Amino acid sequence: MQNNDTIIALATAPGAGAIAIIRLSGEKAIELVNDAFDSIHPKELKDQKSHTVHLGHIKDHDQLIDQVLVSIFKGPNSYTGENVVEISCHGSTYIQQRIIQLFLKKGARAATGGEFTMRAFLNGKMDLSQAEAVGDLIASENEASAQIALQQMRGGFSSEIKKLREQLLNFASLIELELDFAEEDVSFADRNAFSTLLNTITAVLKKLIDSFALGNVIKNGVPVAIVGAPNVGKSTLLNALLNEERAIVSNIAGTTRDTIEDEISIGGVGFRFIDTAGIRTTEDHIEKIGIQKTFEKINQAKLVLYLVDSLACINDKSMAVEDEKAILKIQQENPSTHVIVLGNKVDQLTNQQQNELKGIIPQLQFIAAKTGQGVEELKKAFIDGVQTGAITNNDTVITNSRHYDSLIKALEEIDNVKEGLAKELSSDLLAIDIRQALYHFGEITGEISSDELLGNIFANFCIGK
Amino acid sequence: MQNNDTIIALATAPGAGAIAIIRLSGEKAIELVNDAFDSIHPKELKDQKSHTVHLGHIKDHDQLIDQVLVSIFKGPNSYTGENVVEISCHGSTYIQQRIIQLFLKKGARAATGGEFTMRAFLNGKMDLSQAEAVGDLIASENEASAQIALQQMRGGFSSEIKKLREQLLNFASLIELELDFAEEDVSFADRNAFSTLLNTITAVLKKLIDSFALGNVIKNGVPVAIVGAPNVGKSTLLNALLNEERAIVSNIAGTTRDTIEDEISIGGVGFRFIDTAGIRTTEDHIEKIGIQKTFEKINQAKLVLYLVDSLACINDKSMAVEDEKAILKIQQENPSTHVIVLGNKVDQLTNQQQNELKGIIPQLQFIAAKTGQGVEELKKAFIDGVQTGAITNNDTVITNSRHYDSLIKALEEIDNVKEGLAKELSSDLLAIDIRQALYHFGEITGEISSDELLGNIFANFCIGK
Repeated sequence: MQNNDTIIALATAPGAGAIAIIRLSGEKAIELVNDAFDSIHPKELKDQKSHTVHLGHIKDHDQLIDQVLVSIFKGPNSYTGENVVEISCHGSTYIQQRIIQLFLKKGARAATGGEFTMRAFLNGKMDLSQAEAVGDLIASENEASAQIALQQMRGGFSSEIKKLREQLLNFASLIELELDFAEEDVSFADRNAFSTLLNTITAVLKKLIDSFALGNVIKNGVPVAIVGAPNVGKSTLLNALLNEERAIVSNIAGTTRDTIEDEISIGGVGFRFIDTAGIRTTEDHIEKIGIQKTFEKINQAKLVLYLVDSLACINDKSMAVEDEKAILKIQQENPSTHVIVLGNKVDQLTNQQQNELKGIIPQLQFIAAKTGQGVEELKKAFIDGVQTGAITNNDTVITNSRHYDSLIKALEEIDNVKEGLAKELSSDLLAIDIRQALYHFGEITGEISSDELLGNIFANFCIGK
Repeated sequence: MQNNDTIIALATAPGAGAIAIIRLSGEKAIELVNDAFDSIHPKELKDQKSHTVHLGHIKDHDQLIDQVLVSIFKGPNSYTGENVVEISCHGSTYIQQRIIQLFLKKGARAATGGEFTMRAFLNGKMDLSQAEAVGDLIASENEASAQIALQQMRGGFSSEIKKLREQLLNFASLIELELDFAEEDVSFADRNAFSTLLNTITAVLKKLIDSFALGNVIKNGVPVAIVGAPNVGKSTLLNALLNEERAIVSNIAGTTRDTIEDEISIGGVGFRFIDTAGIRTTEDHIEKIGIQKTFEKINQAKLVLYLVDSLACINDKSMAVEDEKAILKIQQENPSTHVIVLGNKVDQLTNQQQNELKGIIPQLQFIAAKTGQGVEELKKAFIDGVQTGAITNNDTVITNSRHYDSLIKALEEIDNVKEGLAKELSSDLLAIDIRQALYHFGEITGEISSDELLGNIFANFCIGK
């Protein structure tokens, strides 16, 4: 990794916009831009204060390329900790390219994905888990994932890990000190206090590890399996859920997002819909292949939305009985999955008919997707189904599988240490397991890292960040 | 038009990127952002100097939305001439929306297309033709169109128009003064000097009007009709022309542009390829419908690329004779169109065969698209065909059809004035035509404008500019 050169990349979304930002970072970033910049008010960029903005022209020798605003950030008070220049140019793709090409010609190098953030990490501006959170934040598509990423970016999670690591390190030092006096059989480390610390660490690790189940679904969207016949009103329901959000989006022209047709944000949490083959066929018997595939998909889901065709069931009660059987089977086989049973088209049912159906399917929650009746209650059921309390309580939630792996490994080593303590193992053997645990803690915050690890992490970043 | 409220829009390209810029403009822009901004270093945004950048957090009450950089520009030293704030946030589409929604809630209004630039015009930061150039610059996809837009944005064209308008206005005042002394039959305006001015104005107008033919094709891409049989190597040729540019683009990751498959930039000028049905059928006779359609398309083109299948012609000389007939017909019917006759697959011909073919089709220029032979010469022929000298000479080139219309109308009125002068018309009649000419000059620079006109112009702008 060359860390002395000046890197350049487009930092804003690709494509044409009103303006685009081209970012440079490196010791010579300001000089490089200064060299191609004619200020409106005669001045040298390099003589200007940090955090100031300057209007002028970018020129390639005599040829004017664009009128731009140039922002200067002097290291270490910048994103990367190096000198940083941001050029705000007219957002034509041609001009973006032309400016980047100019500085490549002048000696800058095209940045690789996440290289700005990697430099921020290497220069001590943030730890590794904070750097990873930057990537998560940019990828966040709803409030919950943005909030978790923001919290991680601000260092909530890593300060917790760092605190544990420090306490553990203290004990490690004392125990390693004992090694120097091995012949004298002294113990500097208070075994009782150490045992208490290990229990505390175990509790924290377990809580963090447990949070991953929630964090993972929030980051990637809560998987919801929809089980229902084709004509039961699935798409009307999705539209009813989607409508409100759509309206907000389309009200703000210019911020149109790539809508993932089957992901809906409810209460700030993304829900990803998995369509299934359904459980029943038109011949009213359970089709072998269909049901197997459906149950596989239900297995992957955190929520199941079981749609009952209220109208059809009223006309043929045996269908309702079949539905109830299927619902019970789903709940039985997936005890940790939240099942919402929905009776659509309630607007076409009398109260008596509703009660009749509830007699057969007690879990039934009525809705009329077309008129919007019951949609708000359904949204509430979605949120209740994911128990997102942890997010709103500002608890630390793990979303990164790399962190999860390190936490699992750290917990294993802590268990080994505890076992060793119980068995009154010698200091040298204890020290090995403690060092291993410390290693896994360090992996998370980046105190322990390798070029390969960093390469893997930042390769997933977009260019320009 | 409300001009006192604060407008907001995403200024960078839509979609996710490393960062996004949200722009606010209006008297209260700084206060509005100040109200939702927690600076890292305790300070109030509104107490900060213009053209400074500040790190901090955007908050909705207690909820953190993002860590951002905020740039402050105080009116009149800003793009719009009003107070302007640019918020540089993490480029997630969710965060972009969330921030925009926050400020809409706080009283900002979503900007309409081009509203920032319209405010810049209304606040006297630029004239109308400069404002229009901003839109052209953002839309520019190659060097030629970017250069013309930049020149217009810097005011080259409008200062020329303004100078003419001022001189004409001087004479108009003198002639109108004569009206006050109508009974005394005096003439304050020197008719000879006036006549000289009118001739100068006519010459300038004609030059500008003539430049539109070039400006228009440069702005929209030079239309090139390709006439050739399907297997003559059309796509290989297009790829050969495109390859070099593609290589540059793909070298700069993150700047991938929406490639318009049939537009190629050569020497900084965009060429738009129009495929035609071809002139000959396999039966070697001219197909009536095909040829009519082909000639219609040739009519729209500024350049014709006539592809000859060298190999087929060598095997059947009568095909070459037919080709030459068609080429002559095209040149005859489109005298102002530049025709390039290309013999592809020259790598499969002996020198003697090449000379044989040239004996039948003298205009033939040989090429081998597959090996790249002759491609550079072809590019030169393209550029020669458009006579882009005017651009490189920094001559003013009109690209805007609105300006073109106003110039045509102004020229008509100037002609009327000249005719009136020759007929020794009375001052009051002369004055009417002069006023009309002044009106059309004023339309270009925006000294004369209406809400409707402004609405039409800025509606074509992207939001955020």
